[in-house]
Amino acid sequence: MITVSVLYPNKEGARFDMTYYLAKHIPMVKKVLGSALKGVTVEQGVGGGAPGSKAEYSTICHLRFDSVQSFQASFGPNAEAIQKDVPNYSSIPPIVQISEVKLS
Amino acid sequence: MITVSVLYPNKEGARFDMTYYLAKHIPMVKKVLGSALKGVTVEQGVGGGAPGSKAEYSTICHLRFDSVQSFQASFGPNAEAIQKDVPNYSSIPPIVQISEVKLS
Repeated sequence: MITVSVLYPNKEGARFDMTYYLAKHIPMVKKVLGSALKGVTVEQGVGGGAPGSKAEYSTICHLRFDSVQSFQASFGPNAEAIQKDVPNYSSIPPIVQISEVKLS
Repeated sequence: MITVSVLYPNKEGARFDMTYYLAKHIPMVKKVLGSALKGVTVEQGVGGGAPGSKAEYSTICHLRFDSVQSFQASFGPNAEAIQKDVPNYSSIPPIVQISEVKLS
């Protein structure tokens, strides 16, 4: 199992529209990725590790796939449609990383 | 439900011992946090979003709790023991953030 993490930096002045993200973007992503997508989690940053500190990321999204191959096969043909929607809810591009799930 | 994300930067030359982390650190964390900990996920970074790019984080760990209060009550008295173990598996301190789960 792999996770594709999409991390939106919590930069000063950065805009992130959680309402649009949950109501429009995520449903579109789920639709185009179809059965290759095994699960999706969306988290909203509320704070850092130290009391009163800022969260590093305003939003963290995790997408689960069986394998890197399965992610690439489903994401590749839809990459443009997914990426074209980002400016509709975020003023900054996310950091993306692929991870192998070691414990779940 | 909240998530405490612990992100270990994938810096040049940084050491991270996944074997120790899974065999010793995580079991210790689970033991001291007890029933307040609702779930734990460990992921190992394998690459960035662009083909051939490096993962931003060598390891990402997610800890689930019912609330920030429940996290603080269980983590607070054990913070020193948990943090003292970090140098046993990582040469760099992690980034920590608390997030509210919006979709799961």
